Amino acid sequence: SAAEDHLLHLCVDRDFLCPGQTNMGLFQRGLSCSYGPLGLELRRNLLDQWWRSVSTSSAQVFGIKTLTCSQDPPTGGAGHLGIVDLDDLTQVLVQKGLSREELIQQLRERLHRSRLMRTSLYQGALKQFVPSLELANRKLPFGLAETGLCFQPPGRSGWSPKSMDGPGEATNTSLVWFCSPRTSGQWLDYWTRQRLKWWRKFALSPSNFSSAEVPEEELEAVVSRGVRVWYRFPWGQKPVETLWLRGNAELLRTLNGARFTLQGRDGRKTLPHVVTVTGNVDCGMMAFLSNSLQQLKKDNSKHRLQHRQVLKLHPALAPVKVALEIGRGATAELRQLCEGLMQELKEAQISVWPGYLSTQASSMEQLTAKYDEMGVLFTVVISENTLENGLLQVRSRDTTIKETVHISESRNYIFRYISAAHHV
Amino acid sequence: SAAEDHLLHLCVDRDFLCPGQTNMGLFQRGLSCSYGPLGLELRRNLLDQWWRSVSTSSAQVFGIKTLTCSQDPPTGGAGHLGIVDLDDLTQVLVQKGLSREELIQQLRERLHRSRLMRTSLYQGALKQFVPSLELANRKLPFGLAETGLCFQPPGRSGWSPKSMDGPGEATNTSLVWFCSPRTSGQWLDYWTRQRLKWWRKFALSPSNFSSAEVPEEELEAVVSRGVRVWYRFPWGQKPVETLWLRGNAELLRTLNGARFTLQGRDGRKTLPHVVTVTGNVDCGMMAFLSNSLQQLKKDNSKHRLQHRQVLKLHPALAPVKVALEIGRGATAELRQLCEGLMQELKEAQISVWPGYLSTQASSMEQLTAKYDEMGVLFTVVISENTLENGLLQVRSRDTTIKETVHISESRNYIFRYISAAHHV
Repeated sequence: SAAEDHLLHLCVDRDFLCPGQTNMGLFQRGLSCSYGPLGLELRRNLLDQWWRSVSTSSAQVFGIKTLTCSQDPPTGGAGHLGIVDLDDLTQVLVQKGLSREELIQQLRERLHRSRLMRTSLYQGALKQFVPSLELANRKLPFGLAETGLCFQPPGRSGWSPKSMDGPGEATNTSLVWFCSPRTSGQWLDYWTRQRLKWWRKFALSPSNFSSAEVPEEELEAVVSRGVRVWYRFPWGQKPVETLWLRGNAELLRTLNGARFTLQGRDGRKTLPHVVTVTGNVDCGMMAFLSNSLQQLKKDNSKHRLQHRQVLKLHPALAPVKVALEIGRGATAELRQLCEGLMQELKEAQISVWPGYLSTQASSMEQLTAKYDEMGVLFTVVISENTLENGLLQVRSRDTTIKETVHISESRNYIFRYISAAHHV
Repeated sequence: SAAEDHLLHLCVDRDFLCPGQTNMGLFQRGLSCSYGPLGLELRRNLLDQWWRSVSTSSAQVFGIKTLTCSQDPPTGGAGHLGIVDLDDLTQVLVQKGLSREELIQQLRERLHRSRLMRTSLYQGALKQFVPSLELANRKLPFGLAETGLCFQPPGRSGWSPKSMDGPGEATNTSLVWFCSPRTSGQWLDYWTRQRLKWWRKFALSPSNFSSAEVPEEELEAVVSRGVRVWYRFPWGQKPVETLWLRGNAELLRTLNGARFTLQGRDGRKTLPHVVTVTGNVDCGMMAFLSNSLQQLKKDNSKHRLQHRQVLKLHPALAPVKVALEIGRGATAELRQLCEGLMQELKEAQISVWPGYLSTQASSMEQLTAKYDEMGVLFTVVISENTLENGLLQVRSRDTTIKETVHISESRNYIFRYISAAHHV
C-alpha cells in the first residue's frame, strides 16, 4: 500500500533501514533486515526495554542464552533448515568413481550429520529446564527468558527459485513460563495483560495494539489455548506477539526423563505446564515506527500550508535523543563548545547526533524537519550568544517550543526529561 | 589442564554455563555455548560495555546490524557454510526416476541457491560503506560497529564425523574503520591502544592482557599489518581480539563501484583504507572469569586453614550485584521487607539474587562462600533487627567487611558504589 511504501522509504531515507528493495521487502514481511544506525539504536532500545520489563517483573525469571544450531529437530516441525559444509558436499558430487547408490549413501550421511537451525527459542529453553528448576529451589512458577535469532523454514512449496528467496531471519523475544497445571490458564491471561500493557506503554496511540484469542481450529495438537497480540497497521493488522498454553508433552519428550525429576512444587508436587510468550522484535519495530509517524499540516506565518512529518517515538525508544547544531557565529570556537557538550551527553549515556559536523548549508527549518523525521527528541543550537552568556536554545520535538537554557544546565535539563519518561 | 577444568566446573556450578561436557568443550574452544542466568548477565554486561566504549569514543562510529546469511561468499574464503532446506534435498535423493547425472544436476542447482552463513562481520560492514559515507558527510575517518553471531567453517579436514563436531558459533564484536591511506597505520596503533586499555580496565590483573604484532608470514595477502590482543591464561595464551590493516582491495571488490563514489575526504579526496578490529565475546568472557578468580587461604578463629575462592569480577561486569538474605526472625514479615527492597533495587537497574526465597538451611558462612563464587558484590542480610530499628547488614565481596546500614539508605549505598565503578 501507499502508506506502507511511504513509511519504508522514510525509514531508508532516515537511516533506520539500509537501502535496497530486497532489504525493504524483508522488513515488510516482519523479518530481520540490514539496519542502519538509527534502526540499530531503536532495536537496541526495544530489546533493552524488553529485558528491563522481564527483569524488574515481580515474577521469577532467569535469562539464558542457547545455541542457534543443534542436533535436535525443532518442535512443531514445519521444515528442517540445516547448516552444511558446501565445499564438502560439492566434493562428493564431483567424485567420478562413485555409483549412483554410493553417491546417495555418502550424501545421506553428510546430511544426517548436519546441524539444524532453530526455528524458535522454545526448544532451547526446554532443555534448560532441569538446572533452572534447581536454581528456583524446585519452586513453581518460574520463567526462562531469551532473545535471539531464529530461522524461518520455507513454506510447504519450498523457497521459490525465481524470487531467490532465502531462509528468513527473525529476532525473537521469548519467555517460557513453567507453572502448575491448575494455574496455567490464569498465567496465560496474566502474561497477555502484561505484554499488552508493555506494547501500549510505548505507543502514541495505544489502542492500535490489541489481543485476541486464537480460534480453536488454528491451534496445534499440543496447544490448548492461544492468544495473539495484534498491531493494526493502516494497511492491515499483523501479530507482534503470540502466547500459547502448551501443556507438558513437549517438556516430557525433550527431557525424556523420569517424571519425578521434572516435578516442581507449587503447594504440592506437580509436573509443570508450559506457557510460551514469543514476540517478534523486527515486526515490533515496524509497529512502533508506523505508530509514531504523525503527518501534520500547519499554516506558517506566510499562510502557506506546510506538511510536516514527525516520528514521535517514545523517549525510551527514540534512537537519537539530542541533535547538536551550530547557529551563526565564529565556527571554530562554537565547534569546541559542541564537542565538549557532546562528550558530556555521551558520558551520561544520551545518544547525540553531531549535526554541527555537517558542511551542507541547510536552514534551521530544513534541519528540524529532518530531525523530526528521525524522531530526535531535542535539537540543541549553540550560537555566538552561547559564547557571550552561556545560553543555548533547546527545541523539543513534541512541543516544537524553543527554550533558552544555560549550557551548564542543558545536560541535566535533557537528562531529567529522559529519565522521567523511562519511569512512566 | 587442572586449572582450566576447575574454572569450567565452577562456571557450571554457579550457573554461568549450562551443564554438559560438550557445552563446556565449546566454551573452552572460545565458542558460544549455552549460558545459564549468570553467564547471560555477564555476557550482556560485556557487550554493553563494548557498545558504551564505542559510542562514547570521540571517534565517529555508527552502529549497524546486518544479516547472518547472504548470497555473498565470505572474504578470506576458509570454507563455505551453507544453509539448506534438508527436506527438499532429501526429496531429491529419494526420487527413483533420476539418473546419476540428473541427480547431480538437481543437487547442484539447490546447493547453488543456498545462502551462506557469515564467518565474520566484515563483509556486512563493507556493503554498508556507501550509505555510511553519506551519513558522515563523505568525511573520513569513520567506523561501523556491530556485534553478532558468526559461524566458524570446519578446518581443512572438514568436521570430524567421530566427534560429531558441528559448525562453531561465536559472538563477535566488530569495528570496521575507514580512513585515509596515509593515516591507516596510526589508526591501527590507536585502536590497539584503545582496545588494550578497554580489556585492562575490567581486569583484576591487567598485565595478563597484552598486544603483539602478528608475524609477517601469518598475514593474509590483502593484509599489510596485524596486531593481536592476547590473554595469558594459567594454561597458555589465547587471542581475544585481532586488528588488521587491510588496504582497500576488498572494499573495491565488494562494492564493485566507480572509484569516485567510494572516495571520502580527509583534507583531500581519497579512497579509504580499512582497519578491522574484531573481538571474540565468548573468549573474552572466559578471560575475565579466569582473571577474576582468586583462591584465598586464611586462618579462621579456630586456627584451621580455610580455602575460599572469590570471583572478583569488575563491578560493571558482575552479573549479580546484590544477594538478599534473611537472618533470624519472624520470616513472613522479613520476607515482605525483602520483597520491597528487591523491587526497589530492581527498578534502579541493580540485579538482585533473591536468596531469601531458598528453603535450604545454610549457614551464613556457606552462603557467603557461594556468593563469593558467583561474584556477588554485596550480600544484604535483613533480620529481626531490621524490623525493630531499620538497620540491615551489608557485606562487601571485596573487603569482606560487614557494615550496618539503614534500610532507607541501602539502595543509595549500593547505587553509589556501582556508579562510581562505572566511571573508573
